[in-house]
Amino acid sequence: MSPQSLYIHKSIWLIGLPGTGKTTLGKLLVQELKKRGIATILLDGDEVRTGLNNDLGFSTSDRLENIRRVAEISKIILKNGVSTVNAFITPTEELRTLVRSIIPPDSLIEVFLDAPLHICEMRDPKGMYRKAREGRIKNFTGLGSAFEPPLHPDLIIKTGELNIEESLEKLLLLIIEKQARSI
Amino acid sequence: MSPQSLYIHKSIWLIGLPGTGKTTLGKLLVQELKKRGIATILLDGDEVRTGLNNDLGFSTSDRLENIRRVAEISKIILKNGVSTVNAFITPTEELRTLVRSIIPPDSLIEVFLDAPLHICEMRDPKGMYRKAREGRIKNFTGLGSAFEPPLHPDLIIKTGELNIEESLEKLLLLIIEKQARSI
Repeated sequence: MSPQSLYIHKSIWLIGLPGTGKTTLGKLLVQELKKRGIATILLDGDEVRTGLNNDLGFSTSDRLENIRRVAEISKIILKNGVSTVNAFITPTEELRTLVRSIIPPDSLIEVFLDAPLHICEMRDPKGMYRKAREGRIKNFTGLGSAFEPPLHPDLIIKTGELNIEESLEKLLLLIIEKQARSI
Repeated sequence: MSPQSLYIHKSIWLIGLPGTGKTTLGKLLVQELKKRGIATILLDGDEVRTGLNNDLGFSTSDRLENIRRVAEISKIILKNGVSTVNAFITPTEELRTLVRSIIPPDSLIEVFLDAPLHICEMRDPKGMYRKAREGRIKNFTGLGSAFEPPLHPDLIIKTGELNIEESLEKLLLLIIEKQARSI
């Protein structure tokens, strides 16, 4: 398939514990799609929480509101013919059900970045696990707050075993396949 | 200038009373840019309020929160190399100052759609003026709630005098000129 013939119109939702590589993989995916002329918006949990959702914390209701807003924004962006890549922990099935109630099902791809907690904590790219262990962050997913593995992901990527290029390849293949099926 | 050579990377903020043609002009602008291969996201006041911001009303603080979220979303979209067209009444200078504090100044174009209140009320495309006159909508801008004409718009379009094609032409010319200056 030549780069020019590629068309993607999806919200690709990356789910997983802190440190599984959601932001890294999300950024790389957006770059890869951009190379192929496909404009894509990266909505990243950490970035969203420093601006748009800086009024929200990590209680259950605030987590719901955080995800609700991002799903609604994704819906608007999709309506304008542009794709999104959403990098959010999305720790519970309740949150994922909320996402599915807002984004049209044909447009949503759920991807579970699955790495063991001890590997995520060892990586600790943002120093968050350390802070949580020191008691400086409460309700931290994986430690103080539960993470429920997704029940129905479209794809599972074992980011504790695969490197970033292998993960990206797996993800791109799924997206292209899903897009081909929905045209 | 050939369509292929056009590059736009801006948030174009359409300000004006209900009925001045913000949504109509915004939709047409997005279509026109799309024809030229430029992906643009339309953020429209009415649409945003039925989904993303359906938790907000029309009090001063809710209007601020409505505009804050939209400006933050525009900032994220811009960061991803995509333009936005924002169709919002944005009735006060306080709201516009908030927008300017969030969206990078070089990326923002403020356009005032200026039509007399009696013409907007005569048009009343969504039947809102009628409802407001009947007391069924409170804090309606132009009637119960004040509209302050923008102090520093980049462009004023007299939508009570110009037709939609003339308005679009004026707007496109300004955008192209602004973009050329910022490269």
